Amino acid sequence: MFTTREIVIWRTHSTLEGMRTAYQEQLHSLNAVLGEMCDLAGSAMDRATQALLQADLAIAEEVLSENDRLSELSARAEEQAFALLALQAPVAGDLRGVVSGFQIVADVDRMGALALHVAKVARRRHPAKALPEEVNGYFAEMGRLAVALAANAREVLDTQDPEAAVRLQEDDDAMDDLHRHLFTVLMDRDWEYGVAAAVDVTLLGRYYERFADHAVLIGRRVVFQATGQTPEQFQDAS
Amino acid sequence: MFTTREIVIWRTHSTLEGMRTAYQEQLHSLNAVLGEMCDLAGSAMDRATQALLQADLAIAEEVLSENDRLSELSARAEEQAFALLALQAPVAGDLRGVVSGFQIVADVDRMGALALHVAKVARRRHPAKALPEEVNGYFAEMGRLAVALAANAREVLDTQDPEAAVRLQEDDDAMDDLHRHLFTVLMDRDWEYGVAAAVDVTLLGRYYERFADHAVLIGRRVVFQATGQTPEQFQDAS
Repeated sequence: MFTTREIVIWRTHSTLEGMRTAYQEQLHSLNAVLGEMCDLAGSAMDRATQALLQADLAIAEEVLSENDRLSELSARAEEQAFALLALQAPVAGDLRGVVSGFQIVADVDRMGALALHVAKVARRRHPAKALPEEVNGYFAEMGRLAVALAANAREVLDTQDPEAAVRLQEDDDAMDDLHRHLFTVLMDRDWEYGVAAAVDVTLLGRYYERFADHAVLIGRRVVFQATGQTPEQFQDAS
Repeated sequence: MFTTREIVIWRTHSTLEGMRTAYQEQLHSLNAVLGEMCDLAGSAMDRATQALLQADLAIAEEVLSENDRLSELSARAEEQAFALLALQAPVAGDLRGVVSGFQIVADVDRMGALALHVAKVARRRHPAKALPEEVNGYFAEMGRLAVALAANAREVLDTQDPEAAVRLQEDDDAMDDLHRHLFTVLMDRDWEYGVAAAVDVTLLGRYYERFADHAVLIGRRVVFQATGQTPEQFQDAS
């Protein structure tokens, strides 16, 4: 590590242009780690959904044991972001890009935790299935959307394409629709599977919905990294 | 705003000691805004709980309309944190203190959103009560704990006392116990209030639990601000 004085001297001697290039490279490398984290969270949710639908204990355990990998990447991403702030001392828009990086780490961590919650419900109810047959289709589709949102979040982290980043909101609208329909099934028809199943379905629905929310937030932060604008400002301007 | 070049010149001319004092003052001022946000979130959860227990529509509406104030403070806190990073260019421990500030903004925002969720359930079920009489006591107590946790989070933001910050975990253990008992009531006894009430109780329980989780996270971040250590490292060392 460098002392404060060494960093101040180093900053003074560097050219601003050199700092800018180094900043761009390091931000790219940070976003690559964040993208890898999105892949892991998406894969965890994919397998947690399989474990849930098929009451597959082995897959549920796999999801639970592989979460350490996400924590490692999370720690690495935070260290890279700190190094970027300390050594490059970015200002204005660049600064916001790095701070967005910290926020994205928190979002993906939460996505991973929500996939774990799904896997834990599958494990808790094994060998029984947690879900009544009637709602399987909803969860298969919510799982598919969640995995797609994680993949899209990864994609926009790579491309920094603000228009694609804004579109994550649309996939989330589909998730919200499904979630609302699921509640109709729970509430309005003759639900014949008892309260315990209703509680599981309620919590599981919430986990998928929150997973999607965090993917949308990543999209919003990428818009900000790429344009310095909120998604609303960006859409008004374009 | 300053140009990049002006900031570099300014940094070079400032003494490190002067920067350090300015940093401390600005971090204190940032933490004061964060503390005010905790007050607002606690007060919102307090009134949302009243609205829920008494099916009081006026109080529910009040909580919903006052959320803008929290958003304003949230934007102000983020601006202060950005200014601190841009102008003071803190390093090492100080840098982590500011990044914790951004993370605390996100935690308190979420606490406010969860209080809103509670108020919305109260509004949706009005003039009926959302809760069956049997579980009122659980929610009165979870509400009390949530408000106490927000107050404690505010307190440790002020005092930067790492030992008090670690103790937030204990209040959260009490919340987790209540939450577990609530599920026992839902699942194991003869729940006679139907599936719709079970769904409401499940979601509401989750809102209080997550509110408490975020207060605990604020405590963890204060330990980090104050000592540069995680709560686990701090407790092992002391």
